[in-house]
Amino acid sequence: MILDTMGSLSYVPLITSAGPSARNIPKTGNHMPDPHVDSPLYRLINPRSMAFFGASNNISAMGTNLLLSVQAMGFEGPIYPVHPQADTVLGLKAYQRVMDLPEAPDLAVIVLPTRIVNQTLEACGERGIRNAVVVSGGFKERGGEGVALEQELVRIARQYHMALLGPNCLGVANPHHRLNTTFLPYEGPPGFIGLASQSGSIITQLFEYLSAMELGFSTAISVGNEAVIDVVDCMRYLAGCPHTKVIALYLEGITRGRAFLEAARSIVPHKPIVAFYVGGSETGRRAGFSHTGAMAGPDDVYEGVFRQSGVIRARSVTELFDFCWALGSLKRPRGSRVVIQTHSGGPGAAAADSCGRAGLDLPALSEETVEKLADFVPGTGSVNNPVDLTFSRNPQDFFHDIPKILLEDEHTDILMIYFLTPSQVVTRALTQMGVPPDRVAQEGKKMTDQFCRQVVDLIGRHDQPVVGFTFRSFEEPSVKGLLTRGIPVYPGPERAARSLAALTAYGTIRWRLGGGS
Amino acid sequence: MILDTMGSLSYVPLITSAGPSARNIPKTGNHMPDPHVDSPLYRLINPRSMAFFGASNNISAMGTNLLLSVQAMGFEGPIYPVHPQADTVLGLKAYQRVMDLPEAPDLAVIVLPTRIVNQTLEACGERGIRNAVVVSGGFKERGGEGVALEQELVRIARQYHMALLGPNCLGVANPHHRLNTTFLPYEGPPGFIGLASQSGSIITQLFEYLSAMELGFSTAISVGNEAVIDVVDCMRYLAGCPHTKVIALYLEGITRGRAFLEAARSIVPHKPIVAFYVGGSETGRRAGFSHTGAMAGPDDVYEGVFRQSGVIRARSVTELFDFCWALGSLKRPRGSRVVIQTHSGGPGAAAADSCGRAGLDLPALSEETVEKLADFVPGTGSVNNPVDLTFSRNPQDFFHDIPKILLEDEHTDILMIYFLTPSQVVTRALTQMGVPPDRVAQEGKKMTDQFCRQVVDLIGRHDQPVVGFTFRSFEEPSVKGLLTRGIPVYPGPERAARSLAALTAYGTIRWRLGGGS
Repeated sequence: MILDTMGSLSYVPLITSAGPSARNIPKTGNHMPDPHVDSPLYRLINPRSMAFFGASNNISAMGTNLLLSVQAMGFEGPIYPVHPQADTVLGLKAYQRVMDLPEAPDLAVIVLPTRIVNQTLEACGERGIRNAVVVSGGFKERGGEGVALEQELVRIARQYHMALLGPNCLGVANPHHRLNTTFLPYEGPPGFIGLASQSGSIITQLFEYLSAMELGFSTAISVGNEAVIDVVDCMRYLAGCPHTKVIALYLEGITRGRAFLEAARSIVPHKPIVAFYVGGSETGRRAGFSHTGAMAGPDDVYEGVFRQSGVIRARSVTELFDFCWALGSLKRPRGSRVVIQTHSGGPGAAAADSCGRAGLDLPALSEETVEKLADFVPGTGSVNNPVDLTFSRNPQDFFHDIPKILLEDEHTDILMIYFLTPSQVVTRALTQMGVPPDRVAQEGKKMTDQFCRQVVDLIGRHDQPVVGFTFRSFEEPSVKGLLTRGIPVYPGPERAARSLAALTAYGTIRWRLGGGS
Repeated sequence: MILDTMGSLSYVPLITSAGPSARNIPKTGNHMPDPHVDSPLYRLINPRSMAFFGASNNISAMGTNLLLSVQAMGFEGPIYPVHPQADTVLGLKAYQRVMDLPEAPDLAVIVLPTRIVNQTLEACGERGIRNAVVVSGGFKERGGEGVALEQELVRIARQYHMALLGPNCLGVANPHHRLNTTFLPYEGPPGFIGLASQSGSIITQLFEYLSAMELGFSTAISVGNEAVIDVVDCMRYLAGCPHTKVIALYLEGITRGRAFLEAARSIVPHKPIVAFYVGGSETGRRAGFSHTGAMAGPDDVYEGVFRQSGVIRARSVTELFDFCWALGSLKRPRGSRVVIQTHSGGPGAAAADSCGRAGLDLPALSEETVEKLADFVPGTGSVNNPVDLTFSRNPQDFFHDIPKILLEDEHTDILMIYFLTPSQVVTRALTQMGVPPDRVAQEGKKMTDQFCRQVVDLIGRHDQPVVGFTFRSFEEPSVKGLLTRGIPVYPGPERAARSLAALTAYGTIRWRLGGGS
């Protein structure tokens, strides 16, 4: 079925703006049009209140864990647990039946045994609840009776004009709204990555991963079986979401091929989309089928869809978020000419190799730049590209004067810097310089902060994107200092280079799709 | 010059054992042959005492930093700083001239201005010092006069039968002997990776990187300009070193092509070699030339050398150490059939995709295994490959019973497990179960330790290699608990899969080169 739909995609004429989605729920209202607030998903993703089904005071229940995540995030509206016996659930007043709720909340989260999900959803509809997240599994993905159960679920949602996410999903993490219905507590800052995912784990199990890089989700939506709301609907929502700078997709299969293509083509000129399609290999395709029952298509069909629609393709979860990091936080380069700044030959050479492999160019520096650099680079160093300072330079040179010269060179589009300021070396130097032991930590922090600020100020005054790479951990103070200030510092040059290649590819795509430079 | 040498390599007949190196320094002695102790590099890498030239009490001097690294490592023999004025250097009694030293130490480390290096080396030779590390640059890599200076350096080394490492290098890190002459202090445990590197940074700036994975160097040798000792000599040393389980090479160019091929072919059947050749791309090749003046050859020549000699090729610094991790710590698989165990569909599918891309197989499980698993995997899970437990299972199942069943399946060669036990979830569960707040941390640690021990015990009782992957940080207690017990847990499935592919490739190479299965 999907193969048929997908197979015809290569014949679809190029469409430059999307028509209304067949699944969009009609909205009324007198306010000025706002693509965010007017989205049919707005209240599901930004609820003011919620009913919660399936949480109890028993920690081994799935629902309990999800409600604990909601509470840990500090959801600001009222939460109404519905429970047949308990008076309170996790310290909240509980209600026996939906009908007992003091209001019709914006959202119902349902984590109940499969057999009572549909009747609960119906009760929610009757109570006037218009948005639901069904976490429970046991529907279409189980086959057999589950298929019929899911059809009934959809019928109920349609009858009550409900926006329904799932079943077999983990709901929504929208840290900007203090909402997180997923399994693990949200970690780190709210961010700019909008994710629509056919795996809930790829949302909830990546919170810590992203926070280590000082990244976070703007909103992440676990679509589960996509019985009503699907990836395409989520893409449209994220396109209008003001917190989302880049859209990420984790895909095991696309069900509405034409709609996907249309939506992507209308979004990409304004906001980049990166997709990791796990069915790109035969083994991944089979695994995706086991997981959600998604009927993945042959890789070349997907490749065609992504290429036509301007979606940038990642080959792993790591790449998915690496590419988003560059696309969401870096200025747009004029081209693909990279200049590398290093103080060590090996990492510089490794970076040059990575850039070459990623299809980026390493131009020779202009004569003027070489002349300006001569004062800063010692005889043991190099004023080729990579610019290699070697040892024994003033930190001020490395963090300000040299990058400034490189950013002023009109023959380069991107600056890539190797960062290494191990705190133990700073400590060692300060100690040896006679700084009293009780002031070493403080002085070290002050120095590190000053270097980071200098780099950030400098970057702010120039139009080119600047990325760092390092082999140190993200917790290294100098690295952390740059990350918290929004400068991407990739672990290893190959990840930086491939992400820069995605960034330059997006420039070409925008130009092709008419989004302007 | 090198191109000529390398170009002829494809015509070299296959050689199965290496002849004596033309550069080996003759040794005498009555003891039984021992490839480690008898190596011409043995005393350079395992010195009992050293003279240090170029350290002072001034922290901005390179030499001072290197001596601080030596001291931080806790070098156990006497250290004799030689300094024209100072009475003490970094708290050690200093000597004005080489002639004043109370003994002829095993090693001289020279970090002096270029112009006085040769005369110092000559004085060392006269004093009877037979091993030297010349850190100073300004020789062949600078061209012009530097070339002549290096010729003179070599002449002196030959005259005094000295093993000379460098110039333009960072010396040796041999944590098993408490020796580290490089720029940064050694971090983490001594390990099993023997590295010969044409970049000193790739040694010293990777200490923390490796220690985060609980990895470390057995011995890492910075070869610099390779005036006397080159990469091939280091490979031979590492082949005989009992701490070295796998040899890593960072290469910007090979000077002795035939010797490299011969050495590698004789070593690989007994010990795997992984090489990252940075000149594999045009940009990397140019950068390597700037760095050490190495004349890199066309990539296909290198590819041919690596293939003929059974050297496994990495495409980045990350891959270099990832491959070493698998090769040095995992049992040898019978084949390339992987079974994946997960409790989350998305990460399982991503792992399956990564395995497919890396050329590994994901066989269907035997009927017997499927039957045995039925008791453990709920209806929402999957007994396909990946085996997906989903939520709500007893941890004992995941950490013992299920992997045991999978390891007993004779149709699989490798087990790959997705690990996720976030400490905040353990804490949350224990708190909710009524464990008093002051005992939660302790109980959590106890639980985590128990799971890790179970996995490790189980692995110990089976012949197949088992790797983990995770998206959590290395500092996550459950991950750390496995890493410290020697189980590789890769960050992301793609790195695990590519490393497993390197491991299976090594099995094929050994078979081809006659090393046995």
